[in-house]
Amino acid sequence: MQTGPEADEPCLRADAARNRARLLEAAARLIAEHGVAGVTMEAVAAAANVGKGTVFRRFGDRTGLLTALLDHSAKRLQADFLSGPPPLGPGSPPLERLRAFGTAVLHRTAEQLDLQLAAQPEPTRRFTHPAFGSLHMHTTVLLRQIVPGADCELLAHTLLASLDPALIHHLTRQRGMPMERLEAGWLDLVARVTGTDRPR
Amino acid sequence: MQTGPEADEPCLRADAARNRARLLEAAARLIAEHGVAGVTMEAVAAAANVGKGTVFRRFGDRTGLLTALLDHSAKRLQADFLSGPPPLGPGSPPLERLRAFGTAVLHRTAEQLDLQLAAQPEPTRRFTHPAFGSLHMHTTVLLRQIVPGADCELLAHTLLASLDPALIHHLTRQRGMPMERLEAGWLDLVARVTGTDRPR
Repeated sequence: MQTGPEADEPCLRADAARNRARLLEAAARLIAEHGVAGVTMEAVAAAANVGKGTVFRRFGDRTGLLTALLDHSAKRLQADFLSGPPPLGPGSPPLERLRAFGTAVLHRTAEQLDLQLAAQPEPTRRFTHPAFGSLHMHTTVLLRQIVPGADCELLAHTLLASLDPALIHHLTRQRGMPMERLEAGWLDLVARVTGTDRPR
Repeated sequence: MQTGPEADEPCLRADAARNRARLLEAAARLIAEHGVAGVTMEAVAAAANVGKGTVFRRFGDRTGLLTALLDHSAKRLQADFLSGPPPLGPGSPPLERLRAFGTAVLHRTAEQLDLQLAAQPEPTRRFTHPAFGSLHMHTTVLLRQIVPGADCELLAHTLLASLDPALIHHLTRQRGMPMERLEAGWLDLVARVTGTDRPR
């Protein structure tokens, strides 16, 4: 199991790792300012003040860069819910952690909506992607503590499906729903699925 | 609102409509026997005993044929839940109709899994497709009768997400779950979301 953001790259030299982080931060800034369309290899190189060749050597192509950006953010979220402060991390009751988890995923997805949509895997790989596996495992583990008798593996899929980037895109951009309604919907869904009270 | 399988094509001449139905039935047989890969324009023409040109004139290309096949089946399902016999159609209490609806969608999806996966729209169009709109409207209308105080539009999305073809593919083919478990999962989810008892 992963324990930190860079646990899969133990051999990356420190300066290369710093370089990589700088490029990813530059790419994230470009997306925040200009949307996903603003992220070109050239723009990232310019924003990070390195040569274009460095960006290509590090990420291969634009898809590789966008994928690395999502992986980076997914590992941060994973670190937050596995070992960060409560209520998302350990220390809060599982029901509170589950509520905080969905709210955190909702906000992360809303912030990265274009990026996540652009990187959506094929239908046959949506649920085998390691980042999804980590979210599903965490949700299942929390559910097993809240509703031990239930089919928690299936219920976790249902809960996560309500946080699907394509659905969030549809609800917020195509149906014009405010994020507050989606957050309230998550808390209501958790209450219904677990048979618990809504938070005050 | 659509009232029957062919309501959007009132001007189609009767012989052309019969011809079209024959081609779609031939394509459905080919899929049942050889999977989606077995459906070529040539194979459909041969199976329906018509010239290849007829298939191309009717459907344009292979994607057009597969789309027409899914539309045809979606309209049949729609006719079943709007005006077919209970418990799927009118006449049963809304809770029983909702249970039957999910079971029917699960089975239809399992039967057409390759076809539905091949025809999955882009992430930004998954929820604006007319066939999805019809399923969502029906689910919302039933939920409003069962849990009038809830955000039924959002809950309908959650219920339908648990019937997503890509998820059913993952659970049955990649995780090896039997359909019985998915059916039980649907009935359990409906009970949890609506706060009702599971069926005996």
